[in-house]
Amino acid sequence: MAVIIKAERLRKFATQLGQKIGLSEKDAYTLSESLVFANLRGIDSHGIVRLPFYLKRLETRGTNMNPVIKVIKEKPALILLDGDNGMGQVVGRYASDMVTKRAKETGMAYVAVKGSSHFGVASYYAYHIAKEGMAGIVISNATAVMSAWGGSKRIIGNNPLAFSVPYKKNEPILLDISMSGVAGGKIRLYAKNNQEIPKGWILNKEGKETTNPNDLLAGGTLLPFGQHKGYGIAVAIEILTGVMTGAGMMGQIPLWIKDLVSPLNIGHVFIAIDITNFMDLATFKKRLSWMVKKLKASPVSEGSSGIYFPGELERLTYLKRDKEGIPITSEIWSDLEALSQKYKVKLPFKSDIKK
Amino acid sequence: MAVIIKAERLRKFATQLGQKIGLSEKDAYTLSESLVFANLRGIDSHGIVRLPFYLKRLETRGTNMNPVIKVIKEKPALILLDGDNGMGQVVGRYASDMVTKRAKETGMAYVAVKGSSHFGVASYYAYHIAKEGMAGIVISNATAVMSAWGGSKRIIGNNPLAFSVPYKKNEPILLDISMSGVAGGKIRLYAKNNQEIPKGWILNKEGKETTNPNDLLAGGTLLPFGQHKGYGIAVAIEILTGVMTGAGMMGQIPLWIKDLVSPLNIGHVFIAIDITNFMDLATFKKRLSWMVKKLKASPVSEGSSGIYFPGELERLTYLKRDKEGIPITSEIWSDLEALSQKYKVKLPFKSDIKK
Repeated sequence: MAVIIKAERLRKFATQLGQKIGLSEKDAYTLSESLVFANLRGIDSHGIVRLPFYLKRLETRGTNMNPVIKVIKEKPALILLDGDNGMGQVVGRYASDMVTKRAKETGMAYVAVKGSSHFGVASYYAYHIAKEGMAGIVISNATAVMSAWGGSKRIIGNNPLAFSVPYKKNEPILLDISMSGVAGGKIRLYAKNNQEIPKGWILNKEGKETTNPNDLLAGGTLLPFGQHKGYGIAVAIEILTGVMTGAGMMGQIPLWIKDLVSPLNIGHVFIAIDITNFMDLATFKKRLSWMVKKLKASPVSEGSSGIYFPGELERLTYLKRDKEGIPITSEIWSDLEALSQKYKVKLPFKSDIKK
Repeated sequence: MAVIIKAERLRKFATQLGQKIGLSEKDAYTLSESLVFANLRGIDSHGIVRLPFYLKRLETRGTNMNPVIKVIKEKPALILLDGDNGMGQVVGRYASDMVTKRAKETGMAYVAVKGSSHFGVASYYAYHIAKEGMAGIVISNATAVMSAWGGSKRIIGNNPLAFSVPYKKNEPILLDISMSGVAGGKIRLYAKNNQEIPKGWILNKEGKETTNPNDLLAGGTLLPFGQHKGYGIAVAIEILTGVMTGAGMMGQIPLWIKDLVSPLNIGHVFIAIDITNFMDLATFKKRLSWMVKKLKASPVSEGSSGIYFPGELERLTYLKRDKEGIPITSEIWSDLEALSQKYKVKLPFKSDIKK
């Protein structure tokens, strides 16, 4: 039985919790906005479910509550930041604000970050770049949960990639993908439901294909999407975010939800391209609409439910959840109740609960 | 029966042909270098086999022999070029030289191009950026040969993406992928050999999965790699190279090997990031070597032939072909003989021919 919570109230609750732990109001809001952004778009695996882990890492000082984010290298269009082991969301929003400001001066800009932490969904930052009328590209490395193509063990992160451009009012084109074929959370869901998974999603601990989702937790590994292609992009992202920035690389990055005390030293890159240097936004959106219209007018294939632009399905979920509220499973609700009791922050949504 | 030709002689022959048609020596060399670069790395589909088409388009003035490449928009780190319908290779090398020069000043730079033509393999330009000690990213749009995810008709290009960083002497890390699961050339090869193809490579003209490679030519379509993920990246590339630059978009781009007279108005983007702004190249390469070593030390999966970094297999082919020469099929050899006779350019490799 799920309860349904209005986004605004969920944000307020999470913000108050963050402040109780010791975050500034601004930083606590950034954390809550990022989590609720994911929930609103239907990416519940990266939403409020993760709040207890983020808070715990702050309590144990695995994540720095008051980071002093520093510019350590700087050229007109290229900046390297040290995130001082702060929250990924706080460091990420700092960097994504900086990259759009700089892009206004130089046409486009590139802000790389080392010393950051898990930053939630990459699309949150790309979305904020697109809100400034720019094209945004955001990448990050991550804990090694995926095999190399041809490999049988977890060796590299399923390094996320987000891309966004402004499209319609409050409706960007918003691509957000990781480099594994399927998310670990999806496989855990199959395991919970005692369902078989298709071949090609994971390997078991012997490096063999398997249809048993439990093999993932028992020493198995996620596979890259699109074989050598997804693997190749994961390596490219690892080079840009890890190797080139001085951040941790591959197996050097602890699993943040298990190891609550070690700094993560994750690396990110934020790119902003100011579209208005090429054409005014109205012309750009007109051309973009032509593209979307052509894509969506294409005949559909057998068994297809339709053709969508990147982020369109998430946008439909957003519209529904923004109006009706965000469904919260009973397990997550229990977590939130526990946080409410522990930190003496009132669960503020009783009136919105639906069965 | 294949003949084997030394790279240097193949380049010389192609350069002489280009000059006979009317290209400057420099531009003819760029074209031949690009084609032989592909052959050396084993990407024969984009090698010397395509020379007759490039030459024909120059003769028919579908491609501009003497383009006046112009900067039409400029900010410190962001440039938009009009390629004046010149050869993609000529415009592409102009842009990739410009982007590294600019990145030396501003830390990184982004050169977008409209009004270009088919530019061969994207890795050729990324390779030249990496040679300058920089990370290079190169993307392009292309003729619509691929369906949208969920679609049944050719609607978007299999828009290529190349990424490169310097690694060892004359040996960059070099990713070069297109957004279709399998290249059209590979499917034509299956058709020629009367072999079935696996499901998931193409759809037939009714939008159904098929194992008959001939269905591709009979109105079928390539499918994106990695389902919605490859499709999503193809859309992102279309936006950056087509929508945002003012180039042709999707179905607006003629198929260059069929339509020999229309300008193509293809769009590209070249990005260079000067690594030395973050760390010296020796440190970068040391970190990169650590990454490669870790990847390659991972246990392999069942049936795997090993783990490679992006571009490593192509590098092995390069080493062999650079030493021994490039194998040329008898069909392609006939084409070269015909060009030799038509343009009175001596086939200069008799002494290198092996059976």
